[in-house]
Amino acid sequence: MTVAVYLPAEDKTRWWVDMLQDLLPGWQVQSFAEAAADPDAVEHAVVWRPRSGDLARFPNLRAIVSIGAGIDHVLEDDQLPQGVPIIRTVGQDLTQRMREYVALHVLRHHRDMPRQLQAQRDHDWHAIVVPVAPNRVVGVMGLGNLGAEAARTLAGLGFATRGWSKSEKQVEGVACFAGAEGLPGFLDGCEILVNLLPLTDSTRGILNAGLFARLAPGACVINCARGAHLVEEDLLAALESGQIKQATLDVFHIEPLPADHGFWGHPAITVTPHVASQIDAATGGRIIAQNLRTFAETGTCADVADAVRGY
Amino acid sequence: MTVAVYLPAEDKTRWWVDMLQDLLPGWQVQSFAEAAADPDAVEHAVVWRPRSGDLARFPNLRAIVSIGAGIDHVLEDDQLPQGVPIIRTVGQDLTQRMREYVALHVLRHHRDMPRQLQAQRDHDWHAIVVPVAPNRVVGVMGLGNLGAEAARTLAGLGFATRGWSKSEKQVEGVACFAGAEGLPGFLDGCEILVNLLPLTDSTRGILNAGLFARLAPGACVINCARGAHLVEEDLLAALESGQIKQATLDVFHIEPLPADHGFWGHPAITVTPHVASQIDAATGGRIIAQNLRTFAETGTCADVADAVRGY
Repeated sequence: MTVAVYLPAEDKTRWWVDMLQDLLPGWQVQSFAEAAADPDAVEHAVVWRPRSGDLARFPNLRAIVSIGAGIDHVLEDDQLPQGVPIIRTVGQDLTQRMREYVALHVLRHHRDMPRQLQAQRDHDWHAIVVPVAPNRVVGVMGLGNLGAEAARTLAGLGFATRGWSKSEKQVEGVACFAGAEGLPGFLDGCEILVNLLPLTDSTRGILNAGLFARLAPGACVINCARGAHLVEEDLLAALESGQIKQATLDVFHIEPLPADHGFWGHPAITVTPHVASQIDAATGGRIIAQNLRTFAETGTCADVADAVRGY
Repeated sequence: MTVAVYLPAEDKTRWWVDMLQDLLPGWQVQSFAEAAADPDAVEHAVVWRPRSGDLARFPNLRAIVSIGAGIDHVLEDDQLPQGVPIIRTVGQDLTQRMREYVALHVLRHHRDMPRQLQAQRDHDWHAIVVPVAPNRVVGVMGLGNLGAEAARTLAGLGFATRGWSKSEKQVEGVACFAGAEGLPGFLDGCEILVNLLPLTDSTRGILNAGLFARLAPGACVINCARGAHLVEEDLLAALESGQIKQATLDVFHIEPLPADHGFWGHPAITVTPHVASQIDAATGGRIIAQNLRTFAETGTCADVADAVRGY
């Protein structure tokens, strides 16, 4: 069994090659550069943001592993070998980290911490009184693994929680809406919006002026899915008008966010560097090694994505 | 039935008098100043931080209501009429607000938001990797209504949660420690400490150098009980040495915290203005009116505190 590994940073590739080799004794784990010597031998690829055309060089590829929950970065390859299963990397740690991030940032906006911290800078004993969580409407877009668990967590904290997904889902304690026809009802009165949708052609740019206008006036937006979900200029305009009060962004069109990007210094935007649900490499490696072994033995595994659906 | 009301701010007293009068038709609700005309008629007092000696002027007092969960501000009256039941003001809203505050600030420290926000100010794409919550030890001191619910909430978020109380308690999903002999085990390795103890002679100054030294190096401390639990100079020294990395303080020896107090501008201290679990007046009023009616009918109510114990 030969596994070829690619990440944009060479040192990270090296690190992943060594780790996966340790976890897969008896297999051969190589970088894409090393595998180029005998591309026919490569049956499995493990990738983060592969370059277009690279995967097509392995004619006997049986599976592609995305180092992450999303597969959009793989589908961007316009020469992607068709019909090769793509395995997502998900796991309890990933879900746990995401629910921590969502809980933290929803609570930050709920209790208006940005303004409270400003009061501290002003040495101003100014109590900001907010509604109690059961009177605060929060909404989670996307009810996959991560979204459903995030919504359950918010409901557990006492928030009036809604969820929206493409197809109908049920999540305990969460008012669920589905499809285009369910979107207006989901957005109406929503005060804190969390985006956890997969990035597909139908969700690209979904966080736009039209959507913002349907939220409660002064709503907060948290994007922890993909940068391309957000129309950046629409967010800036909505912050300017006050329709959106605050935003927390973990993902961006270009990552790392360029040092001169306007989001860094915007008083109403919190920037975090794609850490909402970072897989630590050790955990991710264990999950990937297990998925590869299962796939090699059985020809499939639980985390195979739907390339047509896009997630 | 005559009720006399006192809060330090005159306008707030007026506001509470009017609101309680609306909620208690048939009763007479007055300010302390008004009640001075006929002190013998006063059977119930509703107070926040009463002045020493004021309550002693009402010889027929049957109950004292604290506008808040703690009764320490009543017990500070050195002429407090002995044997008069003191009724605490607690309720779902109060508990809910406290669990929000505790969850928010534990998560903030867990994910190191202060450092993440500094990275944003520096336009620095710097991912701070932290353990996942099940590998993070958090501890709640005080397992009364508020503390037990806060501990349950932290356990629900996935944290490795401990609780400590004077007498033995059991809270599902929480490793419980009790008494002086249980304290070292509770503190050992604790990375984020939340104080929700009642203020009594035995807990005054409990957040001191000796306690800080037993926590995990670089621990964070959250005080949302009473300012007098904390020895301020010991906290400053522990922050200076790095034994404590960050603190969030909602309560202070003097409130409002004086504008020239060093905590306001301290880079490792987050100051919030006693808002962790503020009763909004409308909710507090409803709870107090109900407790007064119950007490008048039955001679007691569920929220009568133990003046000897102090909470």
